[in-house]
Amino acid sequence: MTDTTYTPPKVWTWDAASGGEFANINRPIAGPTHDKALPVGKHPLQLYSLATPNGVKVTIMLEELLAKGIDGAEYDAYPIRIKDGDQFGSGFVSVNPNSKIPALLDQSETPALRVFESGSILLYLAEKFKAFLPTDLAARTECLSWLFWQMGSAPMLGGGFGHFYAYAPEKYEYPINRYTMEVKRQLDVLDRQLADNQYIAGDEYTIADMAIWPWYGALVMNKVYDAAEFLQTHTYKNVLRWTEEVAQRPAVQRGRMVNRTWGEPSEQLHERHSASDFETKTQDKL
Amino acid sequence: MTDTTYTPPKVWTWDAASGGEFANINRPIAGPTHDKALPVGKHPLQLYSLATPNGVKVTIMLEELLAKGIDGAEYDAYPIRIKDGDQFGSGFVSVNPNSKIPALLDQSETPALRVFESGSILLYLAEKFKAFLPTDLAARTECLSWLFWQMGSAPMLGGGFGHFYAYAPEKYEYPINRYTMEVKRQLDVLDRQLADNQYIAGDEYTIADMAIWPWYGALVMNKVYDAAEFLQTHTYKNVLRWTEEVAQRPAVQRGRMVNRTWGEPSEQLHERHSASDFETKTQDKL
Repeated sequence: MTDTTYTPPKVWTWDAASGGEFANINRPIAGPTHDKALPVGKHPLQLYSLATPNGVKVTIMLEELLAKGIDGAEYDAYPIRIKDGDQFGSGFVSVNPNSKIPALLDQSETPALRVFESGSILLYLAEKFKAFLPTDLAARTECLSWLFWQMGSAPMLGGGFGHFYAYAPEKYEYPINRYTMEVKRQLDVLDRQLADNQYIAGDEYTIADMAIWPWYGALVMNKVYDAAEFLQTHTYKNVLRWTEEVAQRPAVQRGRMVNRTWGEPSEQLHERHSASDFETKTQDKL
Repeated sequence: MTDTTYTPPKVWTWDAASGGEFANINRPIAGPTHDKALPVGKHPLQLYSLATPNGVKVTIMLEELLAKGIDGAEYDAYPIRIKDGDQFGSGFVSVNPNSKIPALLDQSETPALRVFESGSILLYLAEKFKAFLPTDLAARTECLSWLFWQMGSAPMLGGGFGHFYAYAPEKYEYPINRYTMEVKRQLDVLDRQLADNQYIAGDEYTIADMAIWPWYGALVMNKVYDAAEFLQTHTYKNVLRWTEEVAQRPAVQRGRMVNRTWGEPSEQLHERHSASDFETKTQDKL
């Protein structure tokens, strides 16, 4: 049952053989692996992403901004196919030296300005367009605390629970127990917060909701990891209420489609260049 | 060698027996476990923390602010003994519903304002006192991207690598390999960034340095996990150069002592109420 015979070596060496799903894209070194420029469109904002939970945070935000009539938020979105190693191309690395999606280039600034990390992009856009981040200091602070909460918590959900429950080559009992405990605790943190508040940070729908919904909403809707029964997500009733409410927003529904390269063809919009793309979808090859 | 016989149950249940070090403080439910008010001092800022890397981020920032002569940053710091469950007291949970250190209460606002998550506290203080966060948009954005990078990356270092390499009840090969690969990648990301920049986000020492140094600096100085040889941290020469430079700052040296309840007595300052406490230390019982 347990792995008692392993003794770590004095010096770790890269054994490319280990890893499970996504093993081929995990590397112990940073930087580009090949030269490749990024495509650039005509809009102020250029998004290089994929419709994973971290990617969806930003496309929801951009669609919400456009839904408010903020034209400056028009954007071109290009898929970064992480299983193919697009994140290691030189162009992408120059926008995000961490080689993770999402990454944003703001061409409305001179010189064009890079923003990386989903939380940083959400905050950048909220401040640039003065939207979805309260102006009152207490409300703004509460929103940002929850935004940072998501950034520090979700690695235990995605990189921890999701990896060991769904993606690792074998089922390891100890890590699954460890991360299940933490994910249930996090769901309970949210459930208690949402018992007293319509949205995560209070009465207003903010970037904190946009950061948290793609991860924890997907979990309770059983859209990731197929773990709803295992985690008994139906018991987090306030999280469910909020998840369903956010899911009904048209901007959220559009945001979920952008840079999606898997699943139902009707839910996939590989590239996004204008509002009309949601009707006449420009699907390239799967 | 491997744990091939485990099949997760349909529904996970809390087995308090598992867990390794810190097992007694990991819970699958949130909220307070007991009624306990927090102590409150006379200064504008009340910090409830511990000198772990996440705690040290904030005490460094506060000491840096005071070193600049910003009197409004005067603070009382109280230790939250996480192994004793202080983070589950009702007073602490009301300041941080996530039951993690550090948590800050700003009594200079009416009503007193709570801030939680180390990254959120750093940003809050930087904006309140207009310090250690560049005002130029590009430089500010770069700083915040790296701040968020730290928040999203360090859980793979602390909750991942550190747990499985140093704290788990047994050595599990697969998780150790997984997190070692990622931590080495993160160190290389930093090393490349610091090859071209004096500080993390450019020419200025910012909250990005204060967020990253307590984790990655401690790692390369072999102050946590005893993993420097295993990770070959001496090969990250730019990280080492920067680590040593930051370590020499007097505010950093003071910040490391605050709320430290272990290690050398001369490095411990359990509570901090004034600048003179660093000389005449008010050590309570270990």
